[in-house]
Amino acid sequence: MGQHGQPGSVGRHEIPPRSGVAFTLDRGRRLTVIDPQGEQVADLVAFRRDDIDEVISSGRTLDYAGRLFLTAGDPLYSNRSTVLLRIVEDTVGRHDFLLTPCSADTFRILYDDPHPHRGCFGNLAEALAAFGIGPDRIPVAFNVFMNVAVDGTTGTLRVDPPLSRAGDRVTFAAETDLIIGLTACSAPQSNNFAFKPIHYVIE
Amino acid sequence: MGQHGQPGSVGRHEIPPRSGVAFTLDRGRRLTVIDPQGEQVADLVAFRRDDIDEVISSGRTLDYAGRLFLTAGDPLYSNRSTVLLRIVEDTVGRHDFLLTPCSADTFRILYDDPHPHRGCFGNLAEALAAFGIGPDRIPVAFNVFMNVAVDGTTGTLRVDPPLSRAGDRVTFAAETDLIIGLTACSAPQSNNFAFKPIHYVIE
Repeated sequence: MGQHGQPGSVGRHEIPPRSGVAFTLDRGRRLTVIDPQGEQVADLVAFRRDDIDEVISSGRTLDYAGRLFLTAGDPLYSNRSTVLLRIVEDTVGRHDFLLTPCSADTFRILYDDPHPHRGCFGNLAEALAAFGIGPDRIPVAFNVFMNVAVDGTTGTLRVDPPLSRAGDRVTFAAETDLIIGLTACSAPQSNNFAFKPIHYVIE
Repeated sequence: MGQHGQPGSVGRHEIPPRSGVAFTLDRGRRLTVIDPQGEQVADLVAFRRDDIDEVISSGRTLDYAGRLFLTAGDPLYSNRSTVLLRIVEDTVGRHDFLLTPCSADTFRILYDDPHPHRGCFGNLAEALAAFGIGPDRIPVAFNVFMNVAVDGTTGTLRVDPPLSRAGDRVTFAAETDLIIGLTACSAPQSNNFAFKPIHYVIE
């Protein structure tokens, strides 16, 4: 399928492999992120539209949840402790809210790649620039479908293949007017070493 | 002991219970954070002095470390993947880099307190304002001595008493010129329900 209309319009859209988009999402709208082929991560960030200094916060959200792994019913809080998004449906139940979007630095440091891709960070930076959001404002993303195994004793983190299969989805409800950044993730290990598209539906 | 000289001067200083300071730390200096009585957390944040949009990043640091729990030898990376601080000594080995500084919102949401203390977040915001750093720029802190138990299967987080005993310490080396924010943490559960001072030494 192709991109139907503008990135933020009502309907279903495709994000091609290793790319990203940004769009506005009105309060009350629902955003469903779909993994059309399986084992593909989508990095999600959200900013308050009328004040872009307010942004989703992993630290606030995890503290208030008392859990690392979020799913249906869980809110995503901002740095000002306001709920920006709420997860309302989730067919997978395993996502990551610890790690920053992959970037050229990620590929250089973790993959020893001398000519790295710009990653989700670069894709988000380009897409969000249209909304006046600079790269230093990009927070830890809610990494939909990303499967980070945590050893509670040693603290070791291991990036495993996503648990998502073709058609799995997570739906978010916007609790205020937002700017959303969303990618089809570019990190080899996060996506079981195959880059696939991400679909999203706005309704 | 009292406060000796200005907050950032060479020597030993005391941060009274439930308060915080901010100061500059030159490249090459060492900052030692000491728990003088035991079981007391200190929230630490660091900004690049000549460009305060560069700040420590839990997401980058944990991703590059591949571990939740950092100790001697581990660098603290910025949002731009630069090393700002490096842990060079650590007599405890258990700290937190997941959770945001406690705030009035924390106490309202987690402790149901209708008249909450401003917390480490408020203390840091006031201290950092002198350096032109606004509250929205305060990141997830490196929470020295904070002991967050993680269940790797369920993802459940539990704030336990610190493992630090009287005199335990962590030393950081500054890899660039920095602005540091540092507190004696204000959250009841993080400090085993007793608010104590924090000492720090600059050398």
